[in-house]
Amino acid sequence: MHEPALAVKEVERAAKLPGMRGFYIATQVRGKDLSDASFLPVYERIEASRLPLFLHPVEVIGHERLGVYYLTNLLGNPFESAIAAAHLIFGGILDRFPKLVVCLPHAGGAFPWLVGRLNRGWEKRADLKHVKHSPVDYLRRFYYDTVGYSDHVLEYLVKVIGADRVLMGSDYCFPIAYERPVDIVTAHPRLDEDQKKKIVDGNARHLLGL
Amino acid sequence: MHEPALAVKEVERAAKLPGMRGFYIATQVRGKDLSDASFLPVYERIEASRLPLFLHPVEVIGHERLGVYYLTNLLGNPFESAIAAAHLIFGGILDRFPKLVVCLPHAGGAFPWLVGRLNRGWEKRADLKHVKHSPVDYLRRFYYDTVGYSDHVLEYLVKVIGADRVLMGSDYCFPIAYERPVDIVTAHPRLDEDQKKKIVDGNARHLLGL
Repeated sequence: MHEPALAVKEVERAAKLPGMRGFYIATQVRGKDLSDASFLPVYERIEASRLPLFLHPVEVIGHERLGVYYLTNLLGNPFESAIAAAHLIFGGILDRFPKLVVCLPHAGGAFPWLVGRLNRGWEKRADLKHVKHSPVDYLRRFYYDTVGYSDHVLEYLVKVIGADRVLMGSDYCFPIAYERPVDIVTAHPRLDEDQKKKIVDGNARHLLGL
Repeated sequence: MHEPALAVKEVERAAKLPGMRGFYIATQVRGKDLSDASFLPVYERIEASRLPLFLHPVEVIGHERLGVYYLTNLLGNPFESAIAAAHLIFGGILDRFPKLVVCLPHAGGAFPWLVGRLNRGWEKRADLKHVKHSPVDYLRRFYYDTVGYSDHVLEYLVKVIGADRVLMGSDYCFPIAYERPVDIVTAHPRLDEDQKKKIVDGNARHLLGL
């Protein structure tokens, strides 16, 4: 079982510790997606702490099926960010907690690419109209790291969502981690110096209060 | 159970029918992913027929979990194209059948966005090195439709993969179908006339032998 009441206590305790810069939650917690009402008190405390909330998958969707070709990581992890973002949007979490800051791993996973499809669902489906804004309007409620393994992905994040919403990431300690994560940004052929500086320096300073 | 022997017979029968323009297979057939060896005789006959193979999901990954907010369609369907493409690449199907032509639905789903991540896996993981080329090299082995619900997605497909690999789609009969699918292409702000003509006309003529 999951223990949101204990999580609330831990948020309250940890938020006061010296050097604390953020919280982390899995993209699904023991079978509960992030729109689950049991998480509301946790989000409330995290929003009140003014610290950002980082997401990362633990157990990915369809992990038995994705158990070949390293697909649990190569596809399952980025699928998870899209599912989590959809739950935070359609579950009304981002509306209810307007100051909650959420960071998606793996360059947002499949979310930034599929947001148009989520948007189209919102336009056409009466059962999704309870959300105030269209999914595209929520793109800038999230931060994204640079771990997309593609100049095109990074360019899209910067130009479509904004250079102020992208943070340098490394995926350090996993087999596919960048060896030189700064170079991924500074050597990008189509970003300008101001955008690069924000991504490797300014955005993290701002977000983490450094 | 799935019945590849019956599928082989059906391919042989149907390929000779007047007006036949292509075949279709689900992205997963009764629990078997598309790299399953039982499909090899089916792919062999389809390749020999010189007709293209269209993919579309039937039952999507994690469909119980995705049973809210219409996510089985909004996310599950595009996830399926990425899984299917990964199996066709890492399962060696595209190497074994070099003339097999495969069309991915939903603008390739999550595949064109996550191909960089698949590529990175191929670079770093010894267990994926059996494939001749990097996943990015296989992007042009697929056709993609325009059902991405985003000018950015369509632009990426055209500029990164090629205007000759994109086909107009409508998603007709589903709730999120385009009302005016031709306009999605012709009104695109950043494609040129030659690219638009290929997508709404020339590519389909070529692919379907019209």
